[in-house]
Amino acid sequence: MTYDDTNVFAKILRGELPAHKVYEDETAIAFMDLMPQSTGHTLVVPKTPSRNLLDADPASLGPLMAVVQKIARAAKQAFEADGVTVSQFNEIAAGQTVFHLHVHILPRFEGVPLKPHTGHMEKPEILAEHAEKLRAVLGKA
Amino acid sequence: MTYDDTNVFAKILRGELPAHKVYEDETAIAFMDLMPQSTGHTLVVPKTPSRNLLDADPASLGPLMAVVQKIARAAKQAFEADGVTVSQFNEIAAGQTVFHLHVHILPRFEGVPLKPHTGHMEKPEILAEHAEKLRAVLGKA
Repeated sequence: MTYDDTNVFAKILRGELPAHKVYEDETAIAFMDLMPQSTGHTLVVPKTPSRNLLDADPASLGPLMAVVQKIARAAKQAFEADGVTVSQFNEIAAGQTVFHLHVHILPRFEGVPLKPHTGHMEKPEILAEHAEKLRAVLGKA
Repeated sequence: MTYDDTNVFAKILRGELPAHKVYEDETAIAFMDLMPQSTGHTLVVPKTPSRNLLDADPASLGPLMAVVQKIARAAKQAFEADGVTVSQFNEIAAGQTVFHLHVHILPRFEGVPLKPHTGHMEKPEILAEHAEKLRAVLGKA
């Protein structure tokens, strides 16, 4: 399995597609998932290309997970969540739909199950509002 | 939220409880989940204590994820899986049941959904057989 740079996250990284960005550093960017499975569902995408975790450079994982931790902490605070689910899918059988390594950060709320990933596209104004909440916390961190 | 070292993974780390171990290095141990959600469901548990990702030392995450990647690659091969789901739960609302940071590695197979986490305890002989398969691949790595 090889990396194909026409995937949508590569396009977002190159600025060819828009995204509700909440964070960017030399390692990764983070933006709101367009089909959120929970309020505040955010994706962390490393700048170094790999198809998924299986072919990633092990040296890239520490910096990536530091960003994942930062966003998870901020999302818990920004959305007043009770918990955070972190998930990462490798290949179609595991639910991977975009073939550039990414980590899902899902704020969780007592008694609220995750919505299926085949859920509806969230309204842009809601995503913009959620991104703003998360950026406000990240700006203070 | 603080860390309580009476949790079962701390006991496994101290050798006070048995586990179907497949891997150990200076960073982490890996062993079979007793209530597997898929064939070959393995847990990676860092030796450094933290409640979950939210309070973990960021410097510990690189070495931990290198082990996660190693086990994910080996599990895909050992169980001839089509994919691998990696997940990590923070707090009860997210499904966390043991409060020592751990990462789930779930081999995935086309068309086979994950079993619920409240599933049955797997037979020890099956877990032992799965651990042996995984150790065989890891030994060759």
